[in-house]
Amino acid sequence: MSAPIVAVVGGGQLARMMQESANALGIHLRALVEAADGSSAQVIPDHRVGHPDDDTAMDELVAGADVLTFEHEHIPDAQLARLASRLPIEPKAGALHFAQDKIAMRQRLSAAGIACPEWTTCRTREELTEIGQRWGWPVVVKWARGGYDGHGVAVVTDPADIASWFDDLAEGDALLVEEHVPFTREVAALLARSRSGECVAWPLTQTIQRDGICHVAMAPAPGLDPALAREATDIGYRVAAELDVTGVLAVEMFVVEGDSPRVVVNELAMRPHNSGHWTIEGSLTSQFENHLRAVLDLPLGDTRMVAPAACMVNVLGSARAEPRDAYAAVMAREPGAKIHYYGKGVRPGRKLGHVTMIGDDIADIRRRAEACARAIEADEKGN
Amino acid sequence: MSAPIVAVVGGGQLARMMQESANALGIHLRALVEAADGSSAQVIPDHRVGHPDDDTAMDELVAGADVLTFEHEHIPDAQLARLASRLPIEPKAGALHFAQDKIAMRQRLSAAGIACPEWTTCRTREELTEIGQRWGWPVVVKWARGGYDGHGVAVVTDPADIASWFDDLAEGDALLVEEHVPFTREVAALLARSRSGECVAWPLTQTIQRDGICHVAMAPAPGLDPALAREATDIGYRVAAELDVTGVLAVEMFVVEGDSPRVVVNELAMRPHNSGHWTIEGSLTSQFENHLRAVLDLPLGDTRMVAPAACMVNVLGSARAEPRDAYAAVMAREPGAKIHYYGKGVRPGRKLGHVTMIGDDIADIRRRAEACARAIEADEKGN
Repeated sequence: MSAPIVAVVGGGQLARMMQESANALGIHLRALVEAADGSSAQVIPDHRVGHPDDDTAMDELVAGADVLTFEHEHIPDAQLARLASRLPIEPKAGALHFAQDKIAMRQRLSAAGIACPEWTTCRTREELTEIGQRWGWPVVVKWARGGYDGHGVAVVTDPADIASWFDDLAEGDALLVEEHVPFTREVAALLARSRSGECVAWPLTQTIQRDGICHVAMAPAPGLDPALAREATDIGYRVAAELDVTGVLAVEMFVVEGDSPRVVVNELAMRPHNSGHWTIEGSLTSQFENHLRAVLDLPLGDTRMVAPAACMVNVLGSARAEPRDAYAAVMAREPGAKIHYYGKGVRPGRKLGHVTMIGDDIADIRRRAEACARAIEADEKGN
Repeated sequence: MSAPIVAVVGGGQLARMMQESANALGIHLRALVEAADGSSAQVIPDHRVGHPDDDTAMDELVAGADVLTFEHEHIPDAQLARLASRLPIEPKAGALHFAQDKIAMRQRLSAAGIACPEWTTCRTREELTEIGQRWGWPVVVKWARGGYDGHGVAVVTDPADIASWFDDLAEGDALLVEEHVPFTREVAALLARSRSGECVAWPLTQTIQRDGICHVAMAPAPGLDPALAREATDIGYRVAAELDVTGVLAVEMFVVEGDSPRVVVNELAMRPHNSGHWTIEGSLTSQFENHLRAVLDLPLGDTRMVAPAACMVNVLGSARAEPRDAYAAVMAREPGAKIHYYGKGVRPGRKLGHVTMIGDDIADIRRRAEACARAIEADEKGN
């Protein structure tokens, strides 16, 4: 038997980290990348440059492959339809649709009785004004498609602030409007589901976002009422099964604690997710390994944690020209910190890497992992 | 700063596993490999085919590299001397010599007062006969250079059994003769030492060899008298410092338990070692990561275990045509087993991969990891 070939659309850090698991298991990754010197292209020997809307590039990518998967959801529907008879596409287009289109996601989850924020759609400033007056400001407005890392999401008190969004709306398209949930924390249920329907979940992760970008992930969500944690994980299992997801699924949720506790779904991602990077060191099986196992329909790996607590902190682009310049200092200070480098050009605010620590005390490892990430981000003057 | 470039001589599984750590840290590995489709060449994008005695191949390997290192010790002395002024070579030739030449190793360790088996050298059958009659048979005879995985080591009761070894001896060369130590177990002290002299040790590992090939590695060595374990680890630190080793050092030792307990050095390896594969999952920092950090003179990572026990079992070539054929069955049976595949052609007895399990009870995880390895090795009929 020759190596199973997993074709993956993606030149970023998620495909890059998949490669580490592929090495160990003898899986041949083949990546479609944006640039020959990009993040995943640096470490995946079999890569080709191209865009997922290019038929020739996609034909080459899938030739002889056992399965096609993705590190992001921005794949044209027409391309998925064109290739569907050629090889298994995991997650399938029918599932991926709900990670691509937030309005379709809200319709589908609501129909399945899965708790969402109150939501509706709007096509004009006047409609949004009417909704805001009825619900009370602020409301959350999102692009139905194409958003990422805070782009395409706005907390709106005045429709004029997003005037251009209405101008840019295509015929027949709409914006998603959601209640502004007074959440006390954000969590992500991270699961893997195989083509055969085997489904496993990692311990529930708490995330801390800044400007719409994941900043810190902590597992298990510290101090969360076990009943709420169970409810959030159960929602994850229900979404995975209802939508027939394959591969890794992240269900981002708002948690409202207090007198009327509740959990509602915020976003879905059907691929390894920033909230699950801690699983590389913190769990017996990483999200990257289980994504590969799931899309190849192999039995899934054990998701138990190897320590009482894990914390991951993102390293973002800053004034420092090159994160690696700080590694020696950080390694000397924290011999237990696990540094991950993505091989990406530095731009302010861009995700360039992350630091994970595992240990007994979440507050302690969070403080230390944040100090490592800040030391990597700071320039020579400590800015 | 562009990526640090580590040039490594080696096309096998050790360079392959180094690549996983290199990915995470943003280190650029460049490998000299035996074949373009070999184990490490499959996953290290920057590789070239060649032999370490080929000056042109080595010149290309080290061009622009920050450091030269190895996954095996079989590098011609002349090559090391030729390149010594060009870039740091880690471990240095002066240290590597003692991993290449077992007689030099015995002389050096004995001079440093480090416990070895009783030893001497011989050049003829007559000399060996005289030694055996004096010491009592059996004695252990070893090639001074070039042995591996049981090749070049014999337990001798009749010099006629190794008659060809004397015929093959070059002018001036000798065989090493050692007492046959009545050991109760074998252990390996695994350490990493950086160019600056920082030195860390992993918990002492017990190995079980079959036919001279490592079969099982268990950490920490189960049930070993803590004083003996400390003594063995101390020997590891002393060898690392005395020989000015850089990178990973494995000191394989015989332990004699009972009324007159003692620990004596058997072999040295100056590179990541089979006895340390468990560190990938079982320790905060793997031997592969710390080897890279050590040869680049970065501070070393924490070697603490993430579980009370870890066990690694090798997968050897057998009647099964392809180990991967068994992975689904093994994954279904043991979701916590970590399978490692080396991408090597199947030959009986060849190391093709390994399985690691971590947990609370060494006897339990050993039994289960051995069952996984046997299931991977067995052919369709269970042979």
